[in-house]
Amino acid sequence: MNYKFVFKRLGYVLLTEAFLLIFPTLIALYKNENILPFIYTILLIIVFGGLLSLIKVKKDSFYAKEGILITTLSWIALSIFGALPFVFDGAIPSFVDAFFETVSGFTTTGSTIISNVEVLPKGILFWRSFTHWIGGMGILVFVIALLPMSNDNSMHVAKAEMPGPFVSKLSPKLSVTAKWLYGIYLSLTVLEIILLMIGGMPLFDSVVHAFATAGTGGFSIKNSSIAFYNSKYIEYIISIFMILFGINFNVFFLILMRKFKQAITNEELRTYFIIIIVSVILIMINISSLYSNIEEAFRLSFFQVSSIITTTGFSTADFNLWPMFSKIILFVLMFFGACGGSTGGGLKISRVIIMFKKLMKDLILTVHPKSIKKVKLENKTLDDDTISGVGFYFVLYCFIIVVACLIVSLDNFDFETTITSVVTCISNVGPGFSVIGPMGNFAAFSDLSKIVLSLAMLFGRLELYPILLLFSPMVYLKNRRFRN
Amino acid sequence: MNYKFVFKRLGYVLLTEAFLLIFPTLIALYKNENILPFIYTILLIIVFGGLLSLIKVKKDSFYAKEGILITTLSWIALSIFGALPFVFDGAIPSFVDAFFETVSGFTTTGSTIISNVEVLPKGILFWRSFTHWIGGMGILVFVIALLPMSNDNSMHVAKAEMPGPFVSKLSPKLSVTAKWLYGIYLSLTVLEIILLMIGGMPLFDSVVHAFATAGTGGFSIKNSSIAFYNSKYIEYIISIFMILFGINFNVFFLILMRKFKQAITNEELRTYFIIIIVSVILIMINISSLYSNIEEAFRLSFFQVSSIITTTGFSTADFNLWPMFSKIILFVLMFFGACGGSTGGGLKISRVIIMFKKLMKDLILTVHPKSIKKVKLENKTLDDDTISGVGFYFVLYCFIIVVACLIVSLDNFDFETTITSVVTCISNVGPGFSVIGPMGNFAAFSDLSKIVLSLAMLFGRLELYPILLLFSPMVYLKNRRFRN
Repeated sequence: MNYKFVFKRLGYVLLTEAFLLIFPTLIALYKNENILPFIYTILLIIVFGGLLSLIKVKKDSFYAKEGILITTLSWIALSIFGALPFVFDGAIPSFVDAFFETVSGFTTTGSTIISNVEVLPKGILFWRSFTHWIGGMGILVFVIALLPMSNDNSMHVAKAEMPGPFVSKLSPKLSVTAKWLYGIYLSLTVLEIILLMIGGMPLFDSVVHAFATAGTGGFSIKNSSIAFYNSKYIEYIISIFMILFGINFNVFFLILMRKFKQAITNEELRTYFIIIIVSVILIMINISSLYSNIEEAFRLSFFQVSSIITTTGFSTADFNLWPMFSKIILFVLMFFGACGGSTGGGLKISRVIIMFKKLMKDLILTVHPKSIKKVKLENKTLDDDTISGVGFYFVLYCFIIVVACLIVSLDNFDFETTITSVVTCISNVGPGFSVIGPMGNFAAFSDLSKIVLSLAMLFGRLELYPILLLFSPMVYLKNRRFRN
Repeated sequence: MNYKFVFKRLGYVLLTEAFLLIFPTLIALYKNENILPFIYTILLIIVFGGLLSLIKVKKDSFYAKEGILITTLSWIALSIFGALPFVFDGAIPSFVDAFFETVSGFTTTGSTIISNVEVLPKGILFWRSFTHWIGGMGILVFVIALLPMSNDNSMHVAKAEMPGPFVSKLSPKLSVTAKWLYGIYLSLTVLEIILLMIGGMPLFDSVVHAFATAGTGGFSIKNSSIAFYNSKYIEYIISIFMILFGINFNVFFLILMRKFKQAITNEELRTYFIIIIVSVILIMINISSLYSNIEEAFRLSFFQVSSIITTTGFSTADFNLWPMFSKIILFVLMFFGACGGSTGGGLKISRVIIMFKKLMKDLILTVHPKSIKKVKLENKTLDDDTISGVGFYFVLYCFIIVVACLIVSLDNFDFETTITSVVTCISNVGPGFSVIGPMGNFAAFSDLSKIVLSLAMLFGRLELYPILLLFSPMVYLKNRRFRN
């Protein structure tokens, strides 16, 4: 294990955070708020990150293990230091709470422990939402640039991309892909800000909500989330942008490349839209009796489905009070998540498609042992390893949910709160049902649960393996130990 | 598809049920109860089954499709006719309710729609519990005799055993294996009856509860289940027998063959015991504050863990009121289920072991691409198809749970009731939490939900594929249709 290389890189990552912290500092300065919380944090990071970046590294190549360790440690270190402004400012006195809030931000989850967000200073609120936007950008690079795009499977089995040295692959990817990604990400964000302002939303509000949408995060600066603005226009605009940011960014590439046909015929995209349409209609019918007119039922259903499937987590209605049928649909969408290669979380639509097709294939095989049906995605036949990998990704997903539920259940909340708190965190959605419904928050959980739920967010965000490996000694041991 | 063969066999199965119905009839006669409900049912079955059995069959060999159809139709037909005595007697006026209760009996689930079971006539109560015993026996033959015992995988991927004609394999198996199975099954049942009577339980009660234990069913003839007897001795006896009937019957073979070492070193068995011990201790500690002394906490924990992991479903305490940590453990055990080759339901411990080992292997592979670790069970290396099959068995399990939850949620019960009702039914456990807790029942569900839950029980009992196939047109179509 090339530790020196790992920590040097970690140093660079932290110094980047110090730079990013300048933006909220300027906001605080402009709003005549206390800028010391940010200054202190920046100084701490410069000292710590600076020292790490000075480490002398002999060999500069790195392998899977190092790649995993850098990724994981980076997210954790960014969250630890990113939490400091909240603590120094007193907005979130408890460090564990601040850490939970920051992990929730960077992982673009949007679960909050803040009961009354409207009283916080603008600088702090800006930083809180900015973490969503940074996180979303980080994910795009991590998922699309770092994990080679060469084949469709890259989304499905993160581990499969890890093995071997990938410095070579990495550099060109970053320079080419990342530039395009940032371009699209930035333009869409700016476009949303403009459209929201046209809808009468103040500049600051528009910016932070656009950040939360772009990262599919879901932090709002209003206690009643988007419902506060009470504007149909704003609700529709945000619904549409949530769906846009849940799309695989490769589709946007294709559109830029004028390959419209290819973009539209994208199988994952089609399925994503079909799931959204069906869910919106079913929920609209199910809740129609609760609302004055069909447009309202449609709008609320459309907004909530978009918000949950893209794992954003904004709300315009207390879906916690909706009929169980609607709640179960939303619960299932929490698992599905958005498209691979987007800022959304969850299992990813592509994985859901593959699992479904595999089950269909097995059914046919049972009756027709000689049938030679293949499982395909985007017209490419998937090999058994990939398919099996997808299946066991789901198994691991559930396994982690079970372990987390066991620990969180020690807080003795009701069944609904316990289960949905873990699912909403590992899928990076934000709100859950019952205590942690759209009008509730995570403040009441114990510190242990908050830490476990923070890890769950990281598990989901980094596609499980990196975090798991951080806790497994074998990463730090010699290869041969694991041959038999 | 050789329909004539299928229906002829179905006829034989029904005639067997007519014979079995003689026992409850004799009980009713002895207790001076109305025997007409049984007489009418027997006559109906003799006419219907008799006609089917008279069908002339040309070719007597059969393939997977026929095997699947016979199995599935048998379970459904047995339940339809087995429900008639309840309807004719008036004990359960609604046919759907009676069907639910009978499916619950034959699948050894134990979920009930009867609010006050103590007022029912003895003959009816006997038949209700007898279905557990018959179902358990049927499962042993279906799982161990019909699905070839040749390899350990037989338990893991039911479909894998199906392909090709297996008349040849079948006949010898049945004659040899089945005889032993019935011997063990019968002796253990008789032994439990005797031990329960020694504990002061009346003969009739001992018999029906032994039936429910042997089939890992869980129907009781007391509204408060085993708690009614308020006897530590009886509680310990039943706990131990529930665990015994959750063991793979091959282990009993080995013991009879004096291969003790082999029996004890059975990996699935060891894991089964470890899971039980750990769960009992954790729950005991978690609930200790609720009870007067540690022995009581241990006894209640031991009984409930045994009852749930073996998917029996008896209760001695209202675990619905236990802390969430204990409830989550029980919820997880509902998924795990007992050992393969037992009368228990759920995923089966062997599948859980394989999934866990596969995840561990993947973790190691991620860091050590060259590691050549294999996934083994009982010291046999499992091939990728088997492992993948286990993974997707779980995926299918969850997929069916989701679909069932969506339909059941239309009844608009709380989250806890909706989810656990489906899980307890597909895992053939019996009780769930909240409305369907140990002190509750399924009476309040709509007919639609009751039918869906009945199907869930059959799904779980027949290891998913057979039932799914019954609904898929391809079973009835030509082979070539499914090549591409």
